[in-house]
Amino acid sequence: MTPPRPPRGQGGGRPKPPRGRSSAKGRGATPRGGGDDRPSRRRSDDELGGDQVEGRRAVTALLATGRRPVQKVLVAAGQDPSEQLDEIEALAQAARVPLELVSRARLESLARTDTHQGVLALAPSIDPVSLDDLLDGSGPTPFLLVAAGITDPRNLGALLRSAECAGVTGVVLPRHRTARLSPTVAKTAAGAIEHLRFATVAGIPAGLEQLRRAGVLCLGLAGEASRSLYDLPIDDRPVALVLGAEERGLAPLVRRRCDELVQIPQLGQTESLNVSVAGAIACFEVARQRRAASA
Amino acid sequence: MTPPRPPRGQGGGRPKPPRGRSSAKGRGATPRGGGDDRPSRRRSDDELGGDQVEGRRAVTALLATGRRPVQKVLVAAGQDPSEQLDEIEALAQAARVPLELVSRARLESLARTDTHQGVLALAPSIDPVSLDDLLDGSGPTPFLLVAAGITDPRNLGALLRSAECAGVTGVVLPRHRTARLSPTVAKTAAGAIEHLRFATVAGIPAGLEQLRRAGVLCLGLAGEASRSLYDLPIDDRPVALVLGAEERGLAPLVRRRCDELVQIPQLGQTESLNVSVAGAIACFEVARQRRAASA
Repeated sequence: MTPPRPPRGQGGGRPKPPRGRSSAKGRGATPRGGGDDRPSRRRSDDELGGDQVEGRRAVTALLATGRRPVQKVLVAAGQDPSEQLDEIEALAQAARVPLELVSRARLESLARTDTHQGVLALAPSIDPVSLDDLLDGSGPTPFLLVAAGITDPRNLGALLRSAECAGVTGVVLPRHRTARLSPTVAKTAAGAIEHLRFATVAGIPAGLEQLRRAGVLCLGLAGEASRSLYDLPIDDRPVALVLGAEERGLAPLVRRRCDELVQIPQLGQTESLNVSVAGAIACFEVARQRRAASA
Repeated sequence: MTPPRPPRGQGGGRPKPPRGRSSAKGRGATPRGGGDDRPSRRRSDDELGGDQVEGRRAVTALLATGRRPVQKVLVAAGQDPSEQLDEIEALAQAARVPLELVSRARLESLARTDTHQGVLALAPSIDPVSLDDLLDGSGPTPFLLVAAGITDPRNLGALLRSAECAGVTGVVLPRHRTARLSPTVAKTAAGAIEHLRFATVAGIPAGLEQLRRAGVLCLGLAGEASRSLYDLPIDDRPVALVLGAEERGLAPLVRRRCDELVQIPQLGQTESLNVSVAGAIACFEVARQRRAASA
């Protein structure tokens, strides 16, 4: 419903974070030119994003998990005292991340969301892992989320937050489309992107094929499906929930690659659930069944 | 998480819609001075809002349900052809609602959301009903939602959309606080406010007391509760789900007036679910149990 906010100042560059990990899988190898803190830059198709994190919860999680080396944290001057700001300061200090107090105007000019809450952090992009990594048998039974075309960054962020709360073990995103882990995604996810693992695939249908060959039950959510999500014995099998685009739903080829199409029974007269809410309900139903199966 | 957008131009007046119903319950009796289409005006505490509806789905539902006499629909000129715009035009024509083509700039100046999609409608406020009306035994078993302090209009709107999809039969809102059915609520609810009935109460604790006396099971959602939502036999009893404020949750007195406090088991490391998502998950769990009980 909400069109993505256009990025400000495409094409600016900023220096690569000094402690950034390199990755053969996830990033373009093109060097980036010097510059300042320009918040936006041309991004290679392969990049997952997550390099600019705004909002107090999201920055707290970025610092607290320590999964990515944070380049610096910018805090707007003149804010009311807040426990969360104190925590951010303490976490930055403990991790030896530079924390700069900047003017409100400066922070506004760098921020790419309007909900930054006076805090912004810069970090290397999140490195994607491979599909095989997500299927690694050493952890809990795989519980994957496949975001097959969600375009609204608020929807993607909200979905990631709920998915992480439900115990999703990995997220699959198409490599060349959809919303990246933009500042709006990161903000709406409220820190969840720091806890999740992401795999990107060249095509969702081929990715689903690979998951199915590995024994993962691929469930596509489709409003017009005849089968109810609640009638399917999911138990604690490896499962992937596949969610389509906001208006158009699942693409035909994606639909065909799913083991089952299921719907969430709806009683009201409103057209349909928001995609991130439908995803959350499905994630928590999977979690409920897994808990019941292991009880 | 997202602070409500400040209303533009408080204090303007606009003429009372010519076909507006009057209501002793829901509105202040003060006459409103003449004026133009100024989108915002000082609202009495008792008013529920819903008088300015923006966005294509929301305006379509407003016209299609016909529950409120629509004063007029404004459509921005120069938009790409769209089936939804055609439908809005046809619905307005059928209901003899004036539809005005205005400049994009004019629509922008009147809109109170940034997601109006070029369409805005004016209608009388939604009339609240009484708690007793919500408990009327002639319809389906009452399934109520009590929004006890949600302040973010996007959260309230998203929750109302999900609740309506889950089959909620009525919504209880505090009379003097919380988010009204502002344009942002109406937009985010995607038309759901046209299908729901709303009761306002002077105090949530007293309202819960009244519900309990009427035999309604009042379930408060609280992250720290020891009992799981999924362990409670809700079946098809009359039920009210009580949701607290975004950060602070349920107020102590509200908490004490609930029959049970329940939590949604969470597995991840993210702090907590968004309140509108938690509400959606709980609404659909109630719906699932009611369906199972009646099967």
